[in-house]
Amino acid sequence: MRSAAVVGTGLIGTSIALALSARGVIVYLVDQEPMAALTAAAVGAGRAEEPPEAVDLAILAVPPAELATTLAQAQKRGLARAYTDVASVKARPMADIVDLGCDLTSFAGGHPMAGGERSGPLAARANLFEGRVWILSPHPATSEQAQQAVESLIEMCGAYPLVMRPDEHDAAVALVSHAPHMVASLMAARLEHATESQISLAGQGVRDVTRIAAGDPWLWFDILSANAGTVADSLTELARDLEGVIAALRHLESGAEGESDGGAEALLDVLNRGVAGCERLPNKHGTPKASYVTVTVPVGDQPGELARLFADIGATGVNIEDVFIDHDPGKTTGVVELLVTPEGADALSRNLKGHGRIAIGPPESQPSFRM
Amino acid sequence: MRSAAVVGTGLIGTSIALALSARGVIVYLVDQEPMAALTAAAVGAGRAEEPPEAVDLAILAVPPAELATTLAQAQKRGLARAYTDVASVKARPMADIVDLGCDLTSFAGGHPMAGGERSGPLAARANLFEGRVWILSPHPATSEQAQQAVESLIEMCGAYPLVMRPDEHDAAVALVSHAPHMVASLMAARLEHATESQISLAGQGVRDVTRIAAGDPWLWFDILSANAGTVADSLTELARDLEGVIAALRHLESGAEGESDGGAEALLDVLNRGVAGCERLPNKHGTPKASYVTVTVPVGDQPGELARLFADIGATGVNIEDVFIDHDPGKTTGVVELLVTPEGADALSRNLKGHGRIAIGPPESQPSFRM
Repeated sequence: MRSAAVVGTGLIGTSIALALSARGVIVYLVDQEPMAALTAAAVGAGRAEEPPEAVDLAILAVPPAELATTLAQAQKRGLARAYTDVASVKARPMADIVDLGCDLTSFAGGHPMAGGERSGPLAARANLFEGRVWILSPHPATSEQAQQAVESLIEMCGAYPLVMRPDEHDAAVALVSHAPHMVASLMAARLEHATESQISLAGQGVRDVTRIAAGDPWLWFDILSANAGTVADSLTELARDLEGVIAALRHLESGAEGESDGGAEALLDVLNRGVAGCERLPNKHGTPKASYVTVTVPVGDQPGELARLFADIGATGVNIEDVFIDHDPGKTTGVVELLVTPEGADALSRNLKGHGRIAIGPPESQPSFRM
Repeated sequence: MRSAAVVGTGLIGTSIALALSARGVIVYLVDQEPMAALTAAAVGAGRAEEPPEAVDLAILAVPPAELATTLAQAQKRGLARAYTDVASVKARPMADIVDLGCDLTSFAGGHPMAGGERSGPLAARANLFEGRVWILSPHPATSEQAQQAVESLIEMCGAYPLVMRPDEHDAAVALVSHAPHMVASLMAARLEHATESQISLAGQGVRDVTRIAAGDPWLWFDILSANAGTVADSLTELARDLEGVIAALRHLESGAEGESDGGAEALLDVLNRGVAGCERLPNKHGTPKASYVTVTVPVGDQPGELARLFADIGATGVNIEDVFIDHDPGKTTGVVELLVTPEGADALSRNLKGHGRIAIGPPESQPSFRM
């Protein structure tokens, strides 16, 4: 690939442009908002101009609802020899593309599984896709040349291609992204009219469950609308479980206790399946969660406390997979939880204790008692 | 308070015992499992024996369903002059206590809003309650002496008392703890039979939404059963919104688009109320979230990388409220997000750039573009 055009220089488009520019590709930047293309050019993503002749690949980084018309216009003016997109839904835009009579041989859909809470070209970075999965969703009519052009884009961005049909892709993101967003919104919506004293009891659990519900409602409206049927299917199954849970709780409320009755069983069933579902989720490195353990270290809440702790940790040479900091709400003290391999946990605890610190190892190594 | 008895030396009971022992109170440790009491004694929480005479306060740190019988037995043998509990539900255990004919004048219920993912006496720490809210839930018949004994317990543990009626308390924890747990379980349950390729697309969002669903199903069954009616009420409201969302999605799926129609409105309504709900949640220091901003710093994934970063941060003197680490799944690089005050963000970004680092400031300071 020697030349490319990025249409839509937001976070994703600009990050792709940065990655390609870094690999020596000549990148042309196009956006409805000229300032967005100029900003992307200013951070080194390429040239804010229409290409003088057809480029090897055009990346259409526009919202799902605009993809088909953007592709039709681009093909009409001969922007590129091959085209791809980055939209987070695939089936409906593909149907629109077929309906509009676009040339299907030169198009292969794509969806890099990366993003960020921030948007716009200034949040872009060349390594945004490094090590990530990038869904490749060609049409049966897609030419081999077009598919190869997108494969080399994925490789140049440091990502891993995963071929999925549009409907397969949409079912997957409905399950692991769109339905969870909706569930977070539904729970967060219950907090809107909570009393101050109710809110004062909120802890880390409810914060985690609802965190993603803070996302831009219009952006999520677009995403959910474009994948509406599949998300509705996923939420309908969840609604059936929810009905069962409510019935079980009403049953338990009425005083009909005993672990073997229907109420108890239905509730325990969802709790157990929830545990099983959590165990399916990979941690950040794609390894099952169970292969990491937590070491807990109490710390004070003063400037530099974390620096001193991490300096001690650095001296141990143990790699930290994740960090979770839990301050007490008032003041003085909190704990830092460090996610490490089991071998790392031993070395870390021993070394931190050598530095005069308290380090509480994984629960597996401790006897378990009631309450 | 000169003497106390802790009945049930799990995480909460032992942490209370540690806090009281540190303040010079003579603490007697009692548990159905003699090993649990001996372990608590071994970590310095007190004496693993029955008190020779009535103590000033007995803390009954047993499961909600066992509270009433534990109190009745303790009062029968004259264990203490005043009694409290730490159960995470209040109304049903209080009803059981009244039903069993316990002496209500010497009892004032309590619930410290603290805990941990680990259980048992070895996970205990004296500062577990420092700066936390501790619900105080006296009965109308509770004597002033009994209430004062519990108030001084709360003070000695470094917590803040918040008086709530049992039903008020249970409605609050249903909303901010029990319903969120159930929602997390319902979402996680959907992942149990996900395909490997679906799971491969899972990111941080769904991990956060489902994290607490990994909790002990039997413990949560006990908690949810004891607060069944109130949790069912909360989930029934959520189920109504969920029904509306599913209907809206079906409407949007059928192709009836346009922002002013019922489908779009109902979906946007829940998304917007979700955002409003998130804004109600305090961050860890009880300050509205909006008063902190995020600074993002790219880092490598090598031992010592975090230590070097935190050493640089320590040198700036800026206090970090929270840290979020996002590794790329494959290897090499990731980003660290630092939650700081707006003033802190400026100082931090400037200083880190002075150390040759890239530091991306809060989104407010960046222009926003589409996609």
